[in-house]
This record gives sequence, C-alpha cells and structure tokens, in this order.
Amino acid sequence: MLKPRQAVRDLPTYHPPLGAREGLRLDFNENTVGCSPRVLERLRQLNAAQVACYPEREPSERLVATHLSLTPPETLLTNGVDEAIHLLSETYLEPGDEVLIVVPTFSLYEIYAAATGAKVISIPSGEGFRFPTREVLGRITPQTRLIAVANPNNPTGAVAPQNDLLALARSAPDAALLVDEAYFEFYGETLLGQWRALPNLFVARTFSKAYGLAGLRIGVLAGDSVQMKMVRRVSSPYNVNSVALACLPEALADEAYVRHYVEEVCQGRELLEQELRHWDIPYCPSHANFLLARLGWLNSEFIVRMRQRGILVRDRSRDYGCEGCVRITLGTREQTERLLVDLRQVLEEIGVKQARAV
Amino acid sequence: MLKPRQAVRDLPTYHPPLGAREGLRLDFNENTVGCSPRVLERLRQLNAAQVACYPEREPSERLVATHLSLTPPETLLTNGVDEAIHLLSETYLEPGDEVLIVVPTFSLYEIYAAATGAKVISIPSGEGFRFPTREVLGRITPQTRLIAVANPNNPTGAVAPQNDLLALARSAPDAALLVDEAYFEFYGETLLGQWRALPNLFVARTFSKAYGLAGLRIGVLAGDSVQMKMVRRVSSPYNVNSVALACLPEALADEAYVRHYVEEVCQGRELLEQELRHWDIPYCPSHANFLLARLGWLNSEFIVRMRQRGILVRDRSRDYGCEGCVRITLGTREQTERLLVDLRQVLEEIGVKQARAV
Repeated sequence: MLKPRQAVRDLPTYHPPLGAREGLRLDFNENTVGCSPRVLERLRQLNAAQVACYPEREPSERLVATHLSLTPPETLLTNGVDEAIHLLSETYLEPGDEVLIVVPTFSLYEIYAAATGAKVISIPSGEGFRFPTREVLGRITPQTRLIAVANPNNPTGAVAPQNDLLALARSAPDAALLVDEAYFEFYGETLLGQWRALPNLFVARTFSKAYGLAGLRIGVLAGDSVQMKMVRRVSSPYNVNSVALACLPEALADEAYVRHYVEEVCQGRELLEQELRHWDIPYCPSHANFLLARLGWLNSEFIVRMRQRGILVRDRSRDYGCEGCVRITLGTREQTERLLVDLRQVLEEIGVKQARAV
Repeated sequence: MLKPRQAVRDLPTYHPPLGAREGLRLDFNENTVGCSPRVLERLRQLNAAQVACYPEREPSERLVATHLSLTPPETLLTNGVDEAIHLLSETYLEPGDEVLIVVPTFSLYEIYAAATGAKVISIPSGEGFRFPTREVLGRITPQTRLIAVANPNNPTGAVAPQNDLLALARSAPDAALLVDEAYFEFYGETLLGQWRALPNLFVARTFSKAYGLAGLRIGVLAGDSVQMKMVRRVSSPYNVNSVALACLPEALADEAYVRHYVEEVCQGRELLEQELRHWDIPYCPSHANFLLARLGWLNSEFIVRMRQRGILVRDRSRDYGCEGCVRITLGTREQTERLLVDLRQVLEEIGVKQARAV
C-alpha cells in the first residue's frame, strides 16, 4: 500500500479560516484598500497571448533586485513567501536536522520544516513577546540547520534587535538564518545584504502586505548568490505567474501609493494603541500593520460582535502564549476611525470598563 | 559553513530557453492564439481589493472537480503541473527510494524526484518512442515509490496504452503512479477516477496548454481522497493566485473555444505529418499539440532559418534518443499553413530532397 513519508503523516494540516469574508477585512494583514491603481491599469492591458504564454521571471526579478539594491543572482521571486520558506526548507533540511523557531510566530515555518523530517524546536518568547535571544543562542547545536524569525513577528508585531539576529547568524554558521521581513514597510529596519558578511543569512520580503498584491502571489527570497544558486535548483522557473510579473514594475514605480498607505497605517496603529490603553486592555506594541490585544475571556464575544458589525478581526487564542488574544489589522485612517467607533461600542456592550475617560 | 543537502548539490539546474520569443511561438506547446476572450473579460473586471486579498482556492477547486466528474477531496489545484510533481515527490519520496521514468520525457519529473534524494532510474523508450511497458514492469522493486509517465508524452507525442498504465499501478501498489495528462485535450483518453480501484494512481491535468492559461499557472493533481489529504499538507493554501482562480470558471464555461482550437490543432497535425512524409523526414506520430521530427545533422540549421523567418521551434537534440530532433507546436489552421510554407522553403534551402511531389 502506498504510504506518505512519516514526516508527512505526522504533519498538521494548515487551515486558514477562509470563506465568508464580507465586511471590513482586518483579519489577514492585507492592504485594506487594495493595490495601486497603476497595477490595476496594467492588469487590464494584458492580452490573450500574454495570458497564454509561460511567465518570464527574469526581467521583473532584475527590477526587484535593483529596487532592493541587490544583484539578480542574490534575488529570487517566489510564489509568495510561503514558497520561499518551502524552498529554503527543501534546500537545507533533512531528517535529524534541528530547526529553531520562536513561538508564537507564522505557522508555515514549522509546517515546511517538519515536512522535511527535521526536528522543530519551539522556543517561547519572553515577557511581553520579547525575542528570547539568549534562549535561542543556547539551543544552537551542531545539528541546527535552520533558524526562522519573522521580524516584525506575526502575530505579535514585536521585533528582535537587528544585532541579536546577526549574532544568531554568526553563532550558527552551519545553519540558514531566515529573517522574514514581510512587514518591513511598517518597520523600516532590514538585514538585506548582510549576507555579504554572513553568507548563511537569508531575507524574505513580500508584495502581499504594504503593496496590496496578496492575490497575485509575489514574494522575494534574497541571500548570498552561491547559496541562492542552490535554492533556485529546487524552484520551478515558472513559479510566479505572468500577471504578477507584468504588474510588479507598476507596483514598484508607485512609491507614493505605498508610502501614503504605510503612513496611515502607522498613525492608526498609534490611535488603536491609545484606545486600548484607555480601556486597560493589554497589547503588544507593534511594528507591523496589525496589533495583538489580549481581551481574555471576553475575546470570542468581542470577535463575534465585531463581525456582526461588519468588521473582521482574527482570533489568535490558539497560538502559543496568546490565550484570549485578537489580532486586528490596521488600514487607512478612515477605516481605523470606523474600527474605533465599533470597538468602543462593543467593549461597552460586553462590559469592559474604561480605565479613564477617553 | 552552510551546505545544501547532497541531493540538491547534485541536482542539475533547469534552464528553459526563455527571452527573445518574438514571432510565431511554436516552441512551448502553448495555445498559440491565447486564452478565451471570456477569460480576458473576467480578468479585466478584477478590482483593487480582489488583487489585494489572499486567494480562496476552494470555490474554483469545487468547480474543477465537478467539471472532471470528481469530488473536491480528490482534486487539488496547483501552481501549474510543476507544483503537482513537486508535491507528489515531497509527499512520498525519501533517500533510498527508487523512481522510474521513461526517457525522453518532461524534465521536471527527474529534477523534483532527485531533489528528495531518491534514485531516479531512466528507462529508454522502445523503437519509435514506444512505451516500454515490459521494461518498466521489470524494473519495479520493493523500493519503487514513484513512477512518472507523461501521457501523451513530451517531447514525443507518443502514448502508452491505458491498460499498460493500469498494469503498472497494479504491479507497484507501494508506489505512486503519476500519469501526467497535460495534453489530454488533444488525445481524449484519460485515467481520471481509476484510483477508485487503484488508490496509488494520480492524474495531473493543466490549463496551460489547450486552455491557453500558461501565464496564470493552474494545474490539477487528482487522486484517491485519502492520499490527496496527505498531499495537501505539504501545499500552501495560497498556491494558486486570485487572477487564475477568478478566470478559471470562464475558461471552463467556454467549452466551444477549446473544442474549436483543439480541432484546428489536430487537423494541422495531420497536415504537418503528411508534409514530413513527403520529405521523407522521420517523425513520431503525435497525440498532442506538437510533433517531434528528426532532421538529423540539418536540425540546427533548420531551427535557425525558421527563426529568421519569425517561426520559433524547439531544439530537442539534447533529450535522450532525440539527436537531430526538433519539436514543433501546432496552432490554428492558418498558423499551420504559414508554418508549412516556411518549412517547405527552409527544407529546400538547406538541401533536403522531397521523396515525391507534394
């Protein structure tokens, strides 16, 4: 009888809560107003022959490399960051290897790493979701082959000090260190290019968040060109679709669109944090386009009532250390104002008391 | 120092000859006139929010399942057939396993299988690229974990008898048998659903060929639902982009478009075969939208001169058993007529003698 590998039989199934996403979608950390109009205009110019031809990744890949001040051999476009994680796991991991992740974090690191048969070691975040640098350093062994860190982290929005990440790369030269900068635009610090000193460092980026292209699936995996040559081998030359490749130059060209959106998100984040303080609701100070707040036992009631008002937020209670937590994506200033109105009313309805007058 | 797995270090890099594809593109087995106008219309209706949201695969997956008379749990949409092969390799193969392929064939079976560390055993086709059923049966061992067959085969267009494929599945119950029916529409015979008797059988389909959606990247992997549940675990829920998912229903609905195109391709195939017989040029009778012809030592000159006339055809000389062979994609009746005019002139120019008057 045909049997999947043991590692696959042991793997959990990743089920994002899709379907029925009607309303103001503050549940997936997407760009809540959509892609730049220039992207849409380019998309509408595509012709039947372009749809029918296999994608040619190289021209857009070169453009992204230039945009990130990298060389093309350092830069691989991927079918979202998901594929970047998948390729990195496949390139470096085999049964018996050890993988370090800090929890809570994005769930696909564990899934793709475990799928290879490697042993995934989950290290708890510190107090207030602080990055546990010392604990991670202490778990590095000769078997460590991958350390995956989302920075800013998801679902917390917390960041690890850049120097601590570099220390990890230095302390584990036989391991790949993946720094997933999916939320870079809302934070501003990057390790791009640091692989010139530390060739085991990889950085992932995405066009799914600030750029509003989640539907098109474009991620970037960047690293030392010798290492990237190996990663390319397990990737298909047709991994990124033609629509994505055609629209990418427009997305890059419309810098003002992204800058303006990011500004509004960061302003809204400040407003939401302020509001939560007024209600004495603990939250994790965020460097991303979302905020993790701890409502405790009122959490599910809060989420249900927000949904009834047409605002979707994401229950993260089942993540490690996130009991009673909700993750709220920030959008434009106007959307945040709507969010705050409904949030205030729902908190009152479910009986949360204000710490002081707002 | 960070080292990729040995299997990756040993892997060849897959370099399709992209770039500068100007002219009549008969080199990639694409639909040469593009996707249905209905697909394009749907694409142009997409809005900025749809581009910015993560794809929801399920509704289109259900539709494809119905279209193929399958159930949704049997049906997985993939980022092209490339990803289907990748996922199947990852689900079942580990170092020490044996994989059987019949050469020449589509090169990604070998690449994705070898990437897992499995041993790939290449079995030569028989005389005239006949499927070597007996030889394949003879190479099945307790270590055989995957047999990958393109049917019709690429680059030959030859087919294996359906009963022989079923015999393989029966004789290797511990192995996955992948029957890649990427060119099904030009052939008409399928093994879809046969996994209800032989649960180790998988069938792949694509929308890249007859449907003209190569740029959107939509493949299908179908098989026994218990097995498919395992394959799904190593796949990302966001593997297929939103544009592809939105356009797919239109592609399925415009049956007349595909039927008409396939008819023209099959008529053109007949004309090209007839022409080659007149010039005494050996070819492999094809059940797909392309034809493999053996021009011998004149092959490269033929390809260069065709390109000078604006017709791109694909050199397959480096494939096993294909010395001096060119692969020519068939398009519409009109495109085939243009092809034939230029082909006749080029054959005369390079000094091929006609067998008898055309």
